[in-house]
Amino acid sequence: MHGIVAVITDFGVKDHYNGVIKGIILGINPEATIIDLASDVDSFNITDAAFMLYASAAYFPKGTVFLAIVDPGVGTERSAVAVECSNHFFVGPDNGVLYPAASKERIIKAVKLENSRGTFDGRDIFAPAAAKISLENSIEGLGKIYQLNEKFELGEASVDNNFINARIIHVDKFGDAVTNIRKESLTKINKIKYEGMIIKRASSFSDCSNICFIEGSSGFIEIVANKSRASDKLGLYAGKNLRLELYE
Amino acid sequence: MHGIVAVITDFGVKDHYNGVIKGIILGINPEATIIDLASDVDSFNITDAAFMLYASAAYFPKGTVFLAIVDPGVGTERSAVAVECSNHFFVGPDNGVLYPAASKERIIKAVKLENSRGTFDGRDIFAPAAAKISLENSIEGLGKIYQLNEKFELGEASVDNNFINARIIHVDKFGDAVTNIRKESLTKINKIKYEGMIIKRASSFSDCSNICFIEGSSGFIEIVANKSRASDKLGLYAGKNLRLELYE
Amino acid sequence: MHGIVAVITDFGVKDHYNGVIKGIILGINPEATIIDLASDVDSFNITDAAFMLYASAAYFPKGTVFLAIVDPGVGTERSAVAVECSNHFFVGPDNGVLYPAASKERIIKAVKLENSRGTFDGRDIFAPAAAKISLENSIEGLGKIYQLNEKFELGEASVDNNFINARIIHVDKFGDAVTNIRKESLTKINKIKYEGMIIKRASSFSDCSNICFIEGSSGFIEIVANKSRASDKLGLYAGKNLRLELYE
Repeated sequence: MHGIVAVITDFGVKDHYNGVIKGIILGINPEATIIDLASDVDSFNITDAAFMLYASAAYFPKGTVFLAIVDPGVGTERSAVAVECSNHFFVGPDNGVLYPAASKERIIKAVKLENSRGTFDGRDIFAPAAAKISLENSIEGLGKIYQLNEKFELGEASVDNNFINARIIHVDKFGDAVTNIRKESLTKINKIKYEGMIIKRASSFSDCSNICFIEGSSGFIEIVANKSRASDKLGLYAGKNLRLELYE
Repeated sequence: MHGIVAVITDFGVKDHYNGVIKGIILGINPEATIIDLASDVDSFNITDAAFMLYASAAYFPKGTVFLAIVDPGVGTERSAVAVECSNHFFVGPDNGVLYPAASKERIIKAVKLENSRGTFDGRDIFAPAAAKISLENSIEGLGKIYQLNEKFELGEASVDNNFINARIIHVDKFGDAVTNIRKESLTKINKIKYEGMIIKRASSFSDCSNICFIEGSSGFIEIVANKSRASDKLGLYAGKNLRLELYE
Repeated sequence: MHGIVAVITDFGVKDHYNGVIKGIILGINPEATIIDLASDVDSFNITDAAFMLYASAAYFPKGTVFLAIVDPGVGTERSAVAVECSNHFFVGPDNGVLYPAASKERIIKAVKLENSRGTFDGRDIFAPAAAKISLENSIEGLGKIYQLNEKFELGEASVDNNFINARIIHVDKFGDAVTNIRKESLTKINKIKYEGMIIKRASSFSDCSNICFIEGSSGFIEIVANKSRASDKLGLYAGKNLRLELYE
């Protein structure tokens, strides 16, 4: 292994931006293994990318460099950063996209990268930094020590008597809606009620007859359907707040 | 070459699922070459993925491991399998997605993988198995000997006097509709009739003035148009049955 | 580094075509590093792919082989070519897609590849040629010396008194519309007028309150908005001609 760089961006697959980033990385570290973590995050959706990075990093080899570019503030004073954690490195804007994944590990230190004031920091700032880290397994020399500013949290659902105040943090291609309710907090509940509708626990998609909740693969409760889109049926989207009744 | 894993899934490029699979593979085989065969198959469309795997495998180097995850039955009793064939390995659910490609080669043996009962067997079962096979060039030790259950066939169009009963098995991005009619079975025909419309043979897309049929790149007859979508014009989709008159 | 092949096609991520191309390349050069430059260019849009190749090549290591397949004329007499330039190689149809990028470098020589008359030259002609070049760092032996025919130009906006006649050459995922006005030609202008609307210069997306123009990352003026799609608001698309008044 000669350095893995895993890339998550909102650049899409119709444009050349993701490709150019890889060209830059290979120019600095010709032996890098470059992986697309997600190529087409919803434009500017920091929550969505932060969740995916949080849910993914643990499955990558130690030392993997995550390059996360969902950056509506490109060209502004927001800081560009590289973060060394106990298991992985994270490179991107300090706008919250890195924080949930980085803080899930132990943050060892962060540095502030030079800021370009251009419109494509992915190419000009972030990719070169990620490539150098993949080569040297260190953030030394990339900038001054820095404290992460945007301590964005995916949130933790709060319990209020018999109700749970939750939030949707991701909706996937299948219309499965990931909540911020950790699966451990709902082990004794088999039915919840949302806007008058009873939602039963299911152990698999096939086990679900209409709309169900399930212990999702990322450790959170997901609201799902069987071969159809729960998110469309219930009008769920990343960022939506839900008040759920613990029913049975 | 240190093991090629070619991945075909319905996970899409907006989510992290395809990325996580690659992280898992690199954790087990850091030198693996991972290729996206198709990242965004229509959700749950086993026929579509089975066709693409069937049409693609022969173009990959001997020993390539195909990881095929279109798996509406994840979490049920459907079996998870790894198949060793004369030229390639195939890993995925035993729901038909692997069968056309595997049986086109000689099936040497199959094993049944452990079943997780979770919701992301791609990450937990299939990717680790594919990575191990890419490392060891063998399915030994992955599970008990197993016979593939779902002997799904892409189908073979049948001739009925002057008619041919066919099926659409794939519609591509350009709206070209792949039928299950092998090109060899139509060599003497230059016109077919479908729902009152004459469809002429063309030798290339540019050669086609309206809707035509063509000997497609996968060995099947395709119904196509020149720079427009034949599938939209004729209402064709994967799974649709057609009765075509052999006209001239 | 053992040969980089950067692939730009209009094949998309739902089909197996991009995957098959990579299988072919690995069969010829098992050590190739294959990068997606853009996987889903708008179908048949030569201008779009030509612009992206033009805007990207300089960011890739010397010797990179660019495989560019946007090829509405597949199966016709249009030539299939490989081009050796001062820094990179370009392989694809001679329909204009390669010309802007190749002529931006110094063209050393081009050869005409065998023409298949099939429907998937990407697999049968272009990928094998690109793989061989990535292996041997040369186009020798691939065909007869050839002069590029389609000297397609992205165009250069022309000034007409106080007006500039420009063209949109790319609209990206974010709705940013790239014009063919080089940023150097507009350095003293801070406002332009388009169809009665004043468009102000901005230095970053965040700096823009409605519709603005910006010096884009590819060296051209772009018409953009802040977190919304300028292309939708103004009806801009690749190929559209604009008459802009230099206002202030």
